[in-house]
Amino acid sequence: MLAERAAEAVECCRFLAGCTETAGATTRTFLSPPMRDVHAHLTAWMTRLGMTVSVDAAGNIRGRHRGSAPDAPTLFIGSHLDTVPNAGAFDGILGVAMAIALVDLLSGRRFPFAIEVVGFSEEEGVRFGVPFIGSRALAGTLDAALLGRVDAHGASVGDAISQFGLDPRAVPAAAVTGAAIGFVEFHIEQGPVLDSLDLPLGIVDVIVGSRRLDVVFTGAANHAGTTPMSARRDALAGAAEWILAVERLARDTEGLVATVGEIAAHPGAVNVIAGTCRTSLDVRHPDDAIRGSAADALLERAHEIGSRRGLRVDVEPRLDQPSTVMDSALVAQLEHAVARCHQQVHRMPSGAGHDAMIMAGRMPAAMLFLRSPGGVSHHPDEDVRVDDVAAALAVGHRFLDDLERGRAWST
Amino acid sequence: MLAERAAEAVECCRFLAGCTETAGATTRTFLSPPMRDVHAHLTAWMTRLGMTVSVDAAGNIRGRHRGSAPDAPTLFIGSHLDTVPNAGAFDGILGVAMAIALVDLLSGRRFPFAIEVVGFSEEEGVRFGVPFIGSRALAGTLDAALLGRVDAHGASVGDAISQFGLDPRAVPAAAVTGAAIGFVEFHIEQGPVLDSLDLPLGIVDVIVGSRRLDVVFTGAANHAGTTPMSARRDALAGAAEWILAVERLARDTEGLVATVGEIAAHPGAVNVIAGTCRTSLDVRHPDDAIRGSAADALLERAHEIGSRRGLRVDVEPRLDQPSTVMDSALVAQLEHAVARCHQQVHRMPSGAGHDAMIMAGRMPAAMLFLRSPGGVSHHPDEDVRVDDVAAALAVGHRFLDDLERGRAWST
Repeated sequence: MLAERAAEAVECCRFLAGCTETAGATTRTFLSPPMRDVHAHLTAWMTRLGMTVSVDAAGNIRGRHRGSAPDAPTLFIGSHLDTVPNAGAFDGILGVAMAIALVDLLSGRRFPFAIEVVGFSEEEGVRFGVPFIGSRALAGTLDAALLGRVDAHGASVGDAISQFGLDPRAVPAAAVTGAAIGFVEFHIEQGPVLDSLDLPLGIVDVIVGSRRLDVVFTGAANHAGTTPMSARRDALAGAAEWILAVERLARDTEGLVATVGEIAAHPGAVNVIAGTCRTSLDVRHPDDAIRGSAADALLERAHEIGSRRGLRVDVEPRLDQPSTVMDSALVAQLEHAVARCHQQVHRMPSGAGHDAMIMAGRMPAAMLFLRSPGGVSHHPDEDVRVDDVAAALAVGHRFLDDLERGRAWST
Repeated sequence: MLAERAAEAVECCRFLAGCTETAGATTRTFLSPPMRDVHAHLTAWMTRLGMTVSVDAAGNIRGRHRGSAPDAPTLFIGSHLDTVPNAGAFDGILGVAMAIALVDLLSGRRFPFAIEVVGFSEEEGVRFGVPFIGSRALAGTLDAALLGRVDAHGASVGDAISQFGLDPRAVPAAAVTGAAIGFVEFHIEQGPVLDSLDLPLGIVDVIVGSRRLDVVFTGAANHAGTTPMSARRDALAGAAEWILAVERLARDTEGLVATVGEIAAHPGAVNVIAGTCRTSLDVRHPDDAIRGSAADALLERAHEIGSRRGLRVDVEPRLDQPSTVMDSALVAQLEHAVARCHQQVHRMPSGAGHDAMIMAGRMPAAMLFLRSPGGVSHHPDEDVRVDDVAAALAVGHRFLDDLERGRAWST
């Protein structure tokens, strides 16, 4: 049974990878036409299982497996259906397919709580440059400013909603209003940790915050042939020194990751010394205080390099997102279920942001990570093992049992 | 007299800076429409001085001050009329204006040699990505492959010549055929050396060769949040380490300049570790052997960094231009003239390429540099002092006198 449902969930993801905006690759952004095919497929599956299916005004598909009583509170399980450009088949959508497979495993059994499967319309931030449109709607934080953001073609979030046949004015009604037990998200790890430990599953205890900023070094553009080394104020050489300092601090600080992923040197010619060099910085650590002091130390280092090299250093903040701690009771229940399923209990931080981070603002939230073979993600080679999916479904089933037994249910 | 002619030459350059393809900036590429206005202005000036003016099939303007005998050999004096985008007013064109001013100073006096003023059509390599179109025509090395190169709009060098009203089939006739004494070029230094030594003039003894190549580091693009530092193969961090090694070797090697001016990291996102990073290298030294071994050492360093960091390193050659030694007799005559004009004799290498480098393949060649205030060049702030132009004209006049006296002229 478990193995069959796991295989179906994986098969569903592989099939839906064909719902794409770009031939030969998987790219599916917020409410783009292929999302309609994904909704149709998932609606048919959930309807077969006796679930009540709807699409809310933010484009989230929501399938309800009712509880044993009409006024039962709701447990939300899900993840997102959109992808990055040229994506793999499992990031996000596996968590939706697994949620449906879990309902399938119940064979119509009712709990003193309803289960609502959610397939979020948007998490990656590709189309509008801002992530979590779907989960923000459920959390009630999808505001007018966000609805007004426009994509590369000038269409706003509101326009995209209208063009998909939905009513942007109804977005506030997508927010969760009734009693909610919590939100549970199954997701591939998107990193190498579980694979390197040879573990199928990990329980997320914190979604790591991140600080992002641009550092711009400004020196003097000059002729590469006629300017002696001693007379140079080379912005790219200064940036290079700083990039190594970023790497060194992160290597020397347990749990810290720091990345310079963007760089642009101007004027950018083989025979011209760079006059300016813009770099991005992304710093993450589960502990907000450590992340903050690391970022501050790196900025101090940039200024020190700049003053020694005669470069001006400008800092432009982009993001300062605190860490989100997962609900301790749900985490404990997931750990218990993992142990009961004879799997090793491994707590871990999530280095990436997830819908659970947004949902945590509205209700208790928790995540179960599945091993990413080779740590590959956001790439067509992204994969998941069917055995790991079966193990996670077993944990999910056990978690529902425990939840039923472990609480005083007033109906 | 000298001060007046110097002021006129400078004034001419400032005026012709207004002949541009782009309003508000000076940009004048090979045979673009504003070059016609430059030709008209210079033709009028040279005609007033009794010179015979023509434009050859490669678009070079050539004004002849005939010698005392009809079969006299020719001394060529000149520089280029094209500019980089958003250029200053003096790079190249000052050498043409000074050559005409020098003829003006002669007040019709004839020498046992003709003086041919040349305003080369192209030196910067902007429009077709290949420099020295004008001087290559005089040297007889403007071949069919070069004539077939196309600009950003798909027009070939030949098309550009036709569109300007010239005949590309006549390009071979632009080559110098008669007896040539040599080529002398006045040019701003385009660097800070003379300014820092507080010297108005420098005699170029060698035009430094350069080696250019691209070095591409390839690691693995991965999630900046989920990939531990120890599991990264960060192409940009590897490139940064190499950029500092380039800078260090050049600082530690007398006379060597080495520059990384271009960099591109892919995929180039704030939250993605760079999977590839392409960098350019430009290495120059007057001594070809030192330049060669420095470039080899830097490539070895790149491979060493790559193998330590798990990065593939690919090297793509772009250019390997040997140094060009200026003619020792002409250099000695320039030195003598400088000394006789009560200026300090200062020999120096040219870090930049110049038309004299190409002309040296056809006839003896030499260059006299004029101080660049602040070392600024290829920039609207590029400047020259009128006093320095007057000093250079005095040297040029003395040089002509010495040339007349110092040789056995058979007519």
